[in-house]
Order: sequence, then C-alpha cells, then structure tokens
Amino acid sequence: MSNRKQIKFGALIHGVGGNVSVWRHPEVPVDASVNFEFYKLQAQTAEAGKFDLVFIADGLYINEKSIPHFLNRFEPITILSALAAATSHIGLVGTLSSSYSEPFTVARQFGSLDQISSGRAGWNVVTSPLEGSAKNYGKAEHPSHDERYRIAEEFLQVAQGLWDSWEDDAFIRDKESGVFFDPDKLHTLNHKGAYFSVQGPLNIARSKQGQPVIFQAGSSESGKKLAGKVADAVFTGHENIKEAKQFYKEIKDNAIASGRSADDVVILPGIGPIIGATEEEAERKYEEIAGLVSIDSALNYLGRFFEHHDFSQYPLDEPFPDVGELGKNSFRSGTDKIKKQAKEQNLTLRQVALRSATPRGEFIGTPRKIADLIQQWNEEEAADGFIIHTPLPSGLKDFVEQVVPILQERGLYRTEYEADTLRGNLGIPFPANRYTTAKNTAAVNG
Amino acid sequence: MSNRKQIKFGALIHGVGGNVSVWRHPEVPVDASVNFEFYKLQAQTAEAGKFDLVFIADGLYINEKSIPHFLNRFEPITILSALAAATSHIGLVGTLSSSYSEPFTVARQFGSLDQISSGRAGWNVVTSPLEGSAKNYGKAEHPSHDERYRIAEEFLQVAQGLWDSWEDDAFIRDKESGVFFDPDKLHTLNHKGAYFSVQGPLNIARSKQGQPVIFQAGSSESGKKLAGKVADAVFTGHENIKEAKQFYKEIKDNAIASGRSADDVVILPGIGPIIGATEEEAERKYEEIAGLVSIDSALNYLGRFFEHHDFSQYPLDEPFPDVGELGKNSFRSGTDKIKKQAKEQNLTLRQVALRSATPRGEFIGTPRKIADLIQQWNEEEAADGFIIHTPLPSGLKDFVEQVVPILQERGLYRTEYEADTLRGNLGIPFPANRYTTAKNTAAVNG
Ligand SMILES: Cc1cc2nc3c(=O)[nH]c(=O)nc-3n(C[C@H](O)[C@H](O)[C@H](O)COP(=O)(O)O)c2cc1C
Ligand SMILES: Cc1cc2nc3c(=O)[nH]c(=O)nc-3n(C[C@H](O)[C@H](O)[C@H](O)COP(=O)(O)O)c2cc1C
Repeated sequence: MSNRKQIKFGALIHGVGGNVSVWRHPEVPVDASVNFEFYKLQAQTAEAGKFDLVFIADGLYINEKSIPHFLNRFEPITILSALAAATSHIGLVGTLSSSYSEPFTVARQFGSLDQISSGRAGWNVVTSPLEGSAKNYGKAEHPSHDERYRIAEEFLQVAQGLWDSWEDDAFIRDKESGVFFDPDKLHTLNHKGAYFSVQGPLNIARSKQGQPVIFQAGSSESGKKLAGKVADAVFTGHENIKEAKQFYKEIKDNAIASGRSADDVVILPGIGPIIGATEEEAERKYEEIAGLVSIDSALNYLGRFFEHHDFSQYPLDEPFPDVGELGKNSFRSGTDKIKKQAKEQNLTLRQVALRSATPRGEFIGTPRKIADLIQQWNEEEAADGFIIHTPLPSGLKDFVEQVVPILQERGLYRTEYEADTLRGNLGIPFPANRYTTAKNTAAVNG
Repeated sequence: MSNRKQIKFGALIHGVGGNVSVWRHPEVPVDASVNFEFYKLQAQTAEAGKFDLVFIADGLYINEKSIPHFLNRFEPITILSALAAATSHIGLVGTLSSSYSEPFTVARQFGSLDQISSGRAGWNVVTSPLEGSAKNYGKAEHPSHDERYRIAEEFLQVAQGLWDSWEDDAFIRDKESGVFFDPDKLHTLNHKGAYFSVQGPLNIARSKQGQPVIFQAGSSESGKKLAGKVADAVFTGHENIKEAKQFYKEIKDNAIASGRSADDVVILPGIGPIIGATEEEAERKYEEIAGLVSIDSALNYLGRFFEHHDFSQYPLDEPFPDVGELGKNSFRSGTDKIKKQAKEQNLTLRQVALRSATPRGEFIGTPRKIADLIQQWNEEEAADGFIIHTPLPSGLKDFVEQVVPILQERGLYRTEYEADTLRGNLGIPFPANRYTTAKNTAAVNG
C-alpha cells in the first residue's frame, strides 16, 4: 500500500453532450443544457459516487456554427449556486474568464458561492480562447495569448488578495457590547497593477476552506507555468498515458520550482469512459455515438478551434491542410496538438475532423478494464484523479455503479467523504489568511 | 368589488437586519447575512405566504464604518440561484449595478437564473450610490448621477436586446434530421452606443416568462423617468400615504407618457411592519428595536448616505448641520428628503440620525390595523403591493400567519399562486420577442 493520496474524481456536466452530435442519441434529453433537473440529477449521481467535484465549462462567444451545447446553456456561477442548494458534500467548480471580467465581481461571486456551499467552491481560471469574445465586451481586440496570461496572473493576485480582506476571527458579534467586528482584522488591499486597480475590502468573508480552490486548464507553456505557480488543481486532456505522465511531471516540477510542494497541486486529466458489460458492447456504444456525427458538423466543430475557420473549402480525403498561424491566439495548446498529430500520422482532413468530434481515448471497455487503466494512470504518476465526461448521461451512472466499487474494493478510492470542504477532499492545503500569517510571523520574529 | 389587481407582496431578506443594530436583538442569528439556512427559511416562509417575490439588496463598497449587514453578505446572483433550487413559485429579484458591470455578463447571469428557476427572475437595476465603488472597479471616478442614469438606460437596452437573441421557437432539436435550431431565429444584436458596444448573440435563450422582470429603485427625477420608461416594477420607500400616492401617480403618468399602460408597472413601497397582539405590544417591540441603536452607530449610518461624511464632529442637539451638496452624487433622492425634513420639522442631528437608523413608518400595530393600512394604501392608489422588510426575522412569519389571512378573507390577496412565473403573478405583460413581432408585423402589413 503506497502512501499516495487516494484517487480524485470530478464530473463534467455538459448538457446535450460535449461532443458535436451526441444530442441526437435517443437517451439524451434535447433541452439538457438548460434543464435544471438534468444538472441536479447528474450532480447527485456524482455525489452518490463520492466524487470530489462537479465541473461546469464555459465560453463567451457563439455564432450560428457553434455546437448545440454551447448555444444555450446555463452560466456557471448561477448553475453552481443552484447546485449548492441541491447537494451537501460535492465540490462546485466553474469556469470564468479572467480576460473579460472584473476581479471585484468575480472574487465576490466565488466568495459568495463558497459561503453558500460551506466551503465547496472552485474557480477554473481561463483566459478565453475565442477571439469573438472581445466583441461581446466592447473591446477592439482579443488580447494576445501571452497578454491574456499576464492578465490572468494579476487577476488572480487581486482576487486572492480580496478574499483575505477579513481574517478568520474578525467577527466578534457580541450582542452585549455591540461590537460586531474587530477593525484590526479587516484589510484593504489597495492593489494597483498593470491591468487592475482595486481597493477593497471585499464585502464577503472567507469560508471554512479559506479560499475557493483554483483550477487551471490551459496547457500551453504559459498555461503550465501559471498552473505551477498558483493552481490548486489542473484540468487537462491527454490521449495516452505517456503524454499524461510528461505533463504531470512538468506541472509538479513547475510547482516545486515556484517554491511549492508537488502535493499542493492535483492533476486531473479529463477522460470520457464508455462502459460495456463486454469489450464488444462498449465498442458498439462508441460506434453508435461516433455514427451520429456528420462530416459537416465535424468540420464545423474543428473550425471553432481555428478561429472559426471554414474547413469545408478543402478536399476531405487529402492531407490536413496548412492553416498557418490560425489558432495560435485562441486554443493554442489544442491547435498545436492537432497540427502536430496530423503531420506525424499523416492524417486526412476527414480523419482529423472526425477524431476531434468524437475523441476515442483509451477508456472504452468493461468496468474492470477502466478501473485498471485508472489505477495504472494514478500509480504511474500520470494523474492524481480524473474529470469524468462521459458522452452519454447514463455513462456517469454506469461509472458510479460499476467502476467506483472496484476502486473502492482496491482501497484506491474513498467510501465516505473524508471532509466537507472541497480542499479537504482534494487533500490540498488550507490557505492561511496572509494578514494573520504576517502578524504571527512578526510575533515569532519580534 | 373593484377590478383592481390583487395586492402583491415581496420579502426583502436582509441578513442581520437592514437597520444598524438589529443584529443585537436576542432573536437575530448573528451570522444571518452569510447563513444560507436563514435565507432559505425566510424565502420558504414568504413562499408559504404566496408572496410574489423575495428581494436581495446589494452594494459595491464597504469600509470599517459600514453597518454589519453590509460587511459580509451574499452576492445577489449567487444567493438567488441557490434559492431557486429551494423554492418553486416565488420570484427571485436581485439588485445589480449598471454602473460597474458588463451587459453581456449581466444578461447571461439573469437569463440563466431565469431558466434555472423556470421564469422567476427579476433584476433591480441600480446605478450604485456609493462613490467608493469606483475604487473597487479601477475607475478614476464615480460617474455623475445623471450620467449613471444614461448608462443605466443604454445598459438595459443592451441586456433586453441580448435576451431576445433566440426566438421562442428557435430550437427544433430534431434527432432524426440532426437539425438543432433554425438559424433564421437566432439574432445578432450588434449594439454600438455611447457606453457599450456589444455584438451578441447571447448564449442563453428566453425563459417561459420571456425576459427577467425589470425593477427600478431610484427615486430621483432621473430614476422616476427611467422607471416610467422601462420598469416592470418599482421598489420605493415612503413615510406616509400622501407621499406614496404622489409618487404612484407620477410613475404611472410617466409610464403612460412613454406609451405604456399604467398597469404595465407595479409599484411596491417598502414597509417594515411590526406586529403585536395589541397596539401596546407592537409599540414595545418597536422600542426594544430602537433601543439597540447607539447614537454613534446611528451617526455612522447616517454618514454613509452623505458620502461617508463624519457627523460626529457636530453638536448632537443642535439643528441638523448644513452639509452643502454632500449626497447629491450618491443617494440623491434619499439625502434630499433627509435635508428637507430636517429643515421643515426643525430636527436636531440626534433626531435625524436616530430616525434614519430606526425608521418608524405607520405599519406598527395589530394584524388588523396593518391589514387595514395595506388595504387603504392599495385602494387609494398609493401602492400595487409592498416589499415587506420586517426588522426582526420573526416579523415575516408573523406577517404571513397573521396579516395575510385577513387580506385573503377580504378577497384582496391570492390564496394560491395563479401562475408559475414572476410576470404571471405580478400580472404584467409577457414581452414578445422583438424579432418575432417584427416578422409578424411585416407579414400583416406585407
Ligand atoms: C481540459 C481543458 C478544459 C478547458 N475548459 C475551458 C472552458 O471551460 N472554457 C474556456 O474558455 N476554456 C477552457 N479551456 C481552454 C483553456 O483554458 C485555454 O483558454 C485554451 O486552451 C488556450 O490556452 P492554452 O493555449 O494555454 O491551452 C480548457 C482547456 C482544457 C485543456
Ligand atoms: C427602496 C429602495 C431600495 C434600494 N435598493 C438599493 C440596493 O439594493 N442597492 C443599491 O445600490 N441601491 C439601492 N437603492 C438606491 C437607488 O437605486 C439609487 O442608486 C439611489 O437611491 C440614488 O438614486 P436616486 O437619487 O435616483 O434615488 C435603493 C433605493 C430605494 C429607494
């Protein structure tokens, strides 16, 4: 028995299917992305499986070519807050862009979600890949990839600074004397930086997990550097264990280089398990899902990653076309990977489009096979846990009922929540209030 | 029996008491402003009383002189979303500032709340009175009172335009053909105005009430004009029926002048009933609450309305001091009223401060007396309904259990919800989608 932490699980809830055409499958409710009962049921299924968290993705721009799930879906802060009232232990993590938001508002909303849920909030800090987002926010142009990450870093500093406005014992609330709080324990940030100028204090205090958990999902060099520096958890995606191990090591090294411990950051690749009683049944399920995708919608979906490029202009069965720098300023890490693979494996446009639309991954098969792979990825340091995004809604239930018990039997996964905060369950440190720490340090040294 | 609409009720939920020192009362949970169970119970009590809505106030700036309730409280979007999951019929209305937000985000968050709650969302559009807000949002200065209202008007145009991005029958969702939506029913706003430039479309569709209900709470000339033009409901405050009637008429006249019907806008003065089995008991309760306020905290509270002016520098028992223009650019309608009353009634600073800290109003007495007053205000066209903000949490329960049944018996108030949307219950029109309307008009004329 190693002393590694137990495996962590998150569930990505994605309405009518994260893929292009899964909504066409008979079992998918066609209104799922705006159906609260659907979200609630998925979150409660994940909680029944003792998952660490549910995860809500997001985007700030659509057009008539966007895939169904993106067109009309719940906004993360609202749906997570509603789920807070419908669950009791599971973490509530949502994507919010640092490129098109105000730190005071974002810090407040996640701070408030963290209090409503008694310490279960997490924020996936993204820089927004889609250039069109700028037009929805009155900006002349989308900031460059590098600048977006500089903005993100300062944004996070501000938000974390605001979260510490109140020390944990600031509220005295003595009815007799009429003293509500200790003014020495209220702090004004007075941040003035390159991108933001925010005074504070924040009008909400810390929750019992101290601060919301910080997720990072960018996989470019800038993204990985930011993750090493500040992320409590990283959501990533890999096609095989080799790639995942390399990424894992890189992030942990980055964390150590930033003066943190490798254990301070939890790495969670996304996987889309398809479970069958036999290998054949699982394969059949995959084929059924893949068969729903038309080549047109696959080309459409691919185009979105490349700044909504129109791929229908190229011959389908010739090598993937040279699209130059397209994608560099949006989904950089994703488009780099697509280009690289197409070249190395000599793929046609049709192959690239269909693969992107229905990623296969390794996690297709019997519950035992999937449990084995999960164990292997975890033991070989490719993953501390996984974000489960099953193409079909029933996949989450299958996973909870059929894969989870195997991992529990092997002692690799909890049978009861060990904590009631997201940090507690993820096993990451409680961030002491910076002002309290400063006073204590002064007292020790003084 | 007149054919007036029935009386409407909202409940303002305000944590540790909207007043300065109510938190010191034995029955108030001292952590109420960040206690979800407290909010949930209040909302469920209001729903048991068939109230139209709960109302969450807000502010964007605190300092060490702010009153307890403002220091550490839930942010409206998050708490309303959580309450959506804990209620089924009651409307969910929250304050959000048009001076320090982005229309795309605000439209999305209220749109999403409206879908999560199946048509129960309302937005109280405020311009933010507190000058300090600018410092939390990296702005050199707080826009002037007039400019804030110009921003608000354009902001609303954008939000309402975005809400119509999808026509009500835009989603086809045909699994067989693979057609998810009709692109002719998706609309791009392309707004370019003095303050905002927002392309759209919005990535969330309309709820079954069409659009979130628009509340307006500013009582200055600019505020009343905006209300007449665009508000579905107005939250206001008056000390007596005479004042209330005048305000009521003014708003209805403004609505008519803007080409709307008087019935299109519902006017809801805030009242703080204190209920006793006898007049004496109610008076005792008021005195008990008023007695909790120290003169220091009353001066503090008063100062907030006047740009955090320090009133402790003046003699307490001399006439209210001349503070010049202070307050004009923040809570204008409120500070104008305070100055006017102090002058007319020859009040001392102490009297003004204590009155502001513990407003009395008329609604103190037996359930029957309060029901009579409510009926009178309604029949004499001073109010279409009321926002109830009882100083003590138990006051809401008392109101629901003791006053509501009297009004029901008199046939003035519903015994069952007539609708399951906020618009339906308030009896205000369903806003047809502007694009659908345009097409229909074209078809009729063409
Ligand atoms: C697994 C994963 C999940 C992501 N989720 C989101 C999301 O929900 N919303 C979003 O705007 N971007 C999301 N991203 C995109 C990244 O945050 C980032 O904006 C984009 O990949 C470009 O940055 P990069 O080149 O550093 O990866 C995700 C990326 C990955 C790898
Ligand atoms: C009954 C009532 C409730 C209000 N609620 C809020 C609120 O929750 N948050 C806020 O910032 N302002 C609130 N306001 C303030 C107004 O929206 C407005 O900003 C302020 O009164 C100045 O505008 P005015 O001079 O037009 O009234 C409220 C005002 C009234 C009369």
